[in-house]
Amino acid sequence: MTISTATTISELKSKLTSWRSAHQTVGFVPTMGFLHEGHQSLIRKAASENDRVVVSIFVNPTQFAAGEDLATYPRDLAQDQLKCLEAGADLIFTPHVSEMYPSGFNTYVTTSGVSELLEGKSRPTHFRGVTTIVTKLFNLVQPNKAYFGQKDAQQVAVLQQMVRDLNQDLDLIVCPIIREADGLAKSSRNTYLSTDARQQAVVLFQALTLAETLISNGELKTSNIIAALNTHIQAQSLTQIDYIKIVDPTTLQDIDNITTDILLLLAVYVDQTRLIDNKLIHLEA
Amino acid sequence: MTISTATTISELKSKLTSWRSAHQTVGFVPTMGFLHEGHQSLIRKAASENDRVVVSIFVNPTQFAAGEDLATYPRDLAQDQLKCLEAGADLIFTPHVSEMYPSGFNTYVTTSGVSELLEGKSRPTHFRGVTTIVTKLFNLVQPNKAYFGQKDAQQVAVLQQMVRDLNQDLDLIVCPIIREADGLAKSSRNTYLSTDARQQAVVLFQALTLAETLISNGELKTSNIIAALNTHIQAQSLTQIDYIKIVDPTTLQDIDNITTDILLLLAVYVDQTRLIDNKLIHLEA
Repeated sequence: MTISTATTISELKSKLTSWRSAHQTVGFVPTMGFLHEGHQSLIRKAASENDRVVVSIFVNPTQFAAGEDLATYPRDLAQDQLKCLEAGADLIFTPHVSEMYPSGFNTYVTTSGVSELLEGKSRPTHFRGVTTIVTKLFNLVQPNKAYFGQKDAQQVAVLQQMVRDLNQDLDLIVCPIIREADGLAKSSRNTYLSTDARQQAVVLFQALTLAETLISNGELKTSNIIAALNTHIQAQSLTQIDYIKIVDPTTLQDIDNITTDILLLLAVYVDQTRLIDNKLIHLEA
Repeated sequence: MTISTATTISELKSKLTSWRSAHQTVGFVPTMGFLHEGHQSLIRKAASENDRVVVSIFVNPTQFAAGEDLATYPRDLAQDQLKCLEAGADLIFTPHVSEMYPSGFNTYVTTSGVSELLEGKSRPTHFRGVTTIVTKLFNLVQPNKAYFGQKDAQQVAVLQQMVRDLNQDLDLIVCPIIREADGLAKSSRNTYLSTDARQQAVVLFQALTLAETLISNGELKTSNIIAALNTHIQAQSLTQIDYIKIVDPTTLQDIDNITTDILLLLAVYVDQTRLIDNKLIHLEA
């Protein structure tokens, strides 16, 4: 058994037209490929909620800056096809760069504010690349629902704002972080970790859990919580903290005193590998 | 007989859903209201090519800069309703500003290059406002075809690039300029002209015709053509030329020697009123 693969827009549209004329709903999972269980959880969710599932595999150049790892970004289409098939996808759309960005391309979608904080500070054009390619893919696939992982919490916040602001006609479904047995969030980058680093990497998940405990015990001052997490993470010899942030889940603005739901975001180097993790924490009334 | 008017997105969507479920095609004419025969020609064309026609009437604040005439922009919804009805529209969408730009709005569509020349030079955020509102309206109305006037030639070039770059799924139909008996392009602004200025205003159309004659007689050097138009226009005492441009119809880049189709663009003050006009000129083989 194999899975259909479209490399051109016209191949994609021809498949979609046949589904639409049969009144089938379409779920969409945009990816950059090199799929793992996190992606597969999105595809499975999409397959459970739609008649058809399209997965795009496209390493999008506009979200990489000069000097970033565009050229070396890992690719394995054969494995990806197997993983899509296994998870219940119907079609892979894997266009060439020239199909998505033909000569003369010059239009960008920019979501300000929420895209300029955190990851956006060190990568100023990254989210513009994400919002532009996702808008293009939404216009091509016209899905009923599109699926994204909470793992990239800021990407989710940026895309939610984009969908709302541009009146894009679909439901954006956010799926939970998939974790290893010890709590480490699944990521392609985890394979870079040495045995020691892998053991220490669980400190991100431990920190999220510690924050939840502190908050449920009544600690609502974010500076105190962040100080505690700092101490806990730094106790691991290989770690170097990039940021620990407690923010409003929609605007990603820093919060000083917790009065409602918050989003806790971590970016930590473990050895040479930068890991991110996050947790939405609901304040109980 | 009256025409349906939707002021909220949910009213608009409810009407569109009923048409879609009856498999009716939808044509769309976005406007800022104060309709004249130019707009009506777009609506008539849309009515002839689609089962249903939606006209939006929305004075879009994001395409006006501070100091421009947003507050004084002419409005006459009662007259507009009659003109829409007469031309064959089925629905007017006339949302409040807060419906299109709710608090926290922060996403823009920007088409670079073609939007930065000519009108974009003196109005640097104008086309960003146009592309953003048109994208929002396209996502809300999801028309099969959308209709724009060649009168705003640069707007047409910007929107064509946007539709192409973002893979927006519709046909953009460009309709010819509607003219008075003497050739003056129809415009709401023509009512500002004094009797003398109105007589002299025909010089724009004359200049377009002169250029066409020069080119068909073999004059292919644009500097010579522009010099001749300059002389012709300046012979009218009330005129002051803003620009005369001969450009590539797609990129709007200046052309020195004519080898293929060109777009001739004029912006001329007649008394205090700034008039624009243009002509696509096909070079015969």
